[in-house]
Amino acid sequence: MKKNELYETLMNHRSIRSYTDQPVNEQEMTLIMNAVQAAPSSINGQQVTVISIEDLQTKEKIAELTGNQPWVAQAPVFLLFCADFFRAKLAAEQNEENLVITEGMESILVGATDVGLAMGNAIAVAESLELGIVPIGGVRNQPLELIELLGLPEYVFPVSGLVVGHPADLSAKKPRLPQKAVWHKERYDTNLDGLIKEYDQTISNYLDERTNGEENRGWSQQVSSLYNHIYYPEVRKMLVRQGFNFK
Amino acid sequence: MKKNELYETLMNHRSIRSYTDQPVNEQEMTLIMNAVQAAPSSINGQQVTVISIEDLQTKEKIAELTGNQPWVAQAPVFLLFCADFFRAKLAAEQNEENLVITEGMESILVGATDVGLAMGNAIAVAESLELGIVPIGGVRNQPLELIELLGLPEYVFPVSGLVVGHPADLSAKKPRLPQKAVWHKERYDTNLDGLIKEYDQTISNYLDERTNGEENRGWSQQVSSLYNHIYYPEVRKMLVRQGFNFK
Repeated sequence: MKKNELYETLMNHRSIRSYTDQPVNEQEMTLIMNAVQAAPSSINGQQVTVISIEDLQTKEKIAELTGNQPWVAQAPVFLLFCADFFRAKLAAEQNEENLVITEGMESILVGATDVGLAMGNAIAVAESLELGIVPIGGVRNQPLELIELLGLPEYVFPVSGLVVGHPADLSAKKPRLPQKAVWHKERYDTNLDGLIKEYDQTISNYLDERTNGEENRGWSQQVSSLYNHIYYPEVRKMLVRQGFNFK
Repeated sequence: MKKNELYETLMNHRSIRSYTDQPVNEQEMTLIMNAVQAAPSSINGQQVTVISIEDLQTKEKIAELTGNQPWVAQAPVFLLFCADFFRAKLAAEQNEENLVITEGMESILVGATDVGLAMGNAIAVAESLELGIVPIGGVRNQPLELIELLGLPEYVFPVSGLVVGHPADLSAKKPRLPQKAVWHKERYDTNLDGLIKEYDQTISNYLDERTNGEENRGWSQQVSSLYNHIYYPEVRKMLVRQGFNFK
């Protein structure tokens, strides 16, 4: 197989939650942001904005708003990835058109997907520069306060944060679902119960070993205990507040 | 600057709409799918499924459903990227829990973001192997028919397609928005009108040159003419049909 440096970097991805105090320099940030902009974008709409935060007080506030995640304040830089139709709004005004896309679910899907693509590029470049990262879904925990704090205008909403810095130590790589469960050929195959049970055993063994028996729940137990409620219930309110509708 | 191979590959990204008939082999597909699974995933939920389609008749049907995109049928392989909470449903059943996450907007955001992250990895690996790709948002054009065609169960919805093959010719790289428009420091800066006008001029000149004067609309004109309506209006219906709610 012709594996290569890029492939190895992606396969080596892991979440880092402990950072040294070495800063991320402007050149590194520029490479990351160049890659953010190089990601594919639906209709070339470029509906992604990144706010980079280095101010300690702001990072501390964000650490709190995201559900008390200390690495947000500890790491040198926090990136907020937003889906952004505010520029589309300005574009519409400049051309005396109405902005209608934000009335429909389509805009939510496109915005989030494009953020994922852009953030994936940011992560890949950061890790290729030997920086560590951890995505922060917790930006959807108290999104209205975050919007206020960072001055997000209408038609912009936070999708994910990304902590970036120099790793103080490397975490382990958790095993993933058996590939047959996520890669289907020609048609969706709903026969998945056995694969989930197999993966439960893998995760259970993995955790048992790493925690000296303190944690050994399987994947299905963990996921079902997190998905038996809407754990970020403010998301709809945030979208309405920012001007979106769900037609 | 310590640029590297990975960075150069990401910066070289472009959409390819013309392919040779050389197949994508199983080893290449496996590297792509390994990278899909290595992408970060919210709560380790792994809510991404890829259906790979090589059957010509199915690809022809998809080419039609996505709004007559001939490259979908021409290229050797079409990947459908889905947000997938069906495995979470099975996990809930195995643990006698209720699946509630799909009642809220949170699940739509998480699903689409994770698909973006995973698809970004797929694109990066494909391009590092000198394959060409083009993302197909048109899978949201007639999504109910696509769901039927590929047998997607409840709690699974198509987010984007990805055409993969060997490029017959290289397209050009369109210039992006000025970086100041998408990278804000510490706080969102709404002062963007001038940057949009500057970019309009860049795109207008770029197109004028490449089409011998036939097309010279700026970015804001193009975007506002596409965003003055909901161009994939079936998205909400698709989500409802698949079992989602928007609380």
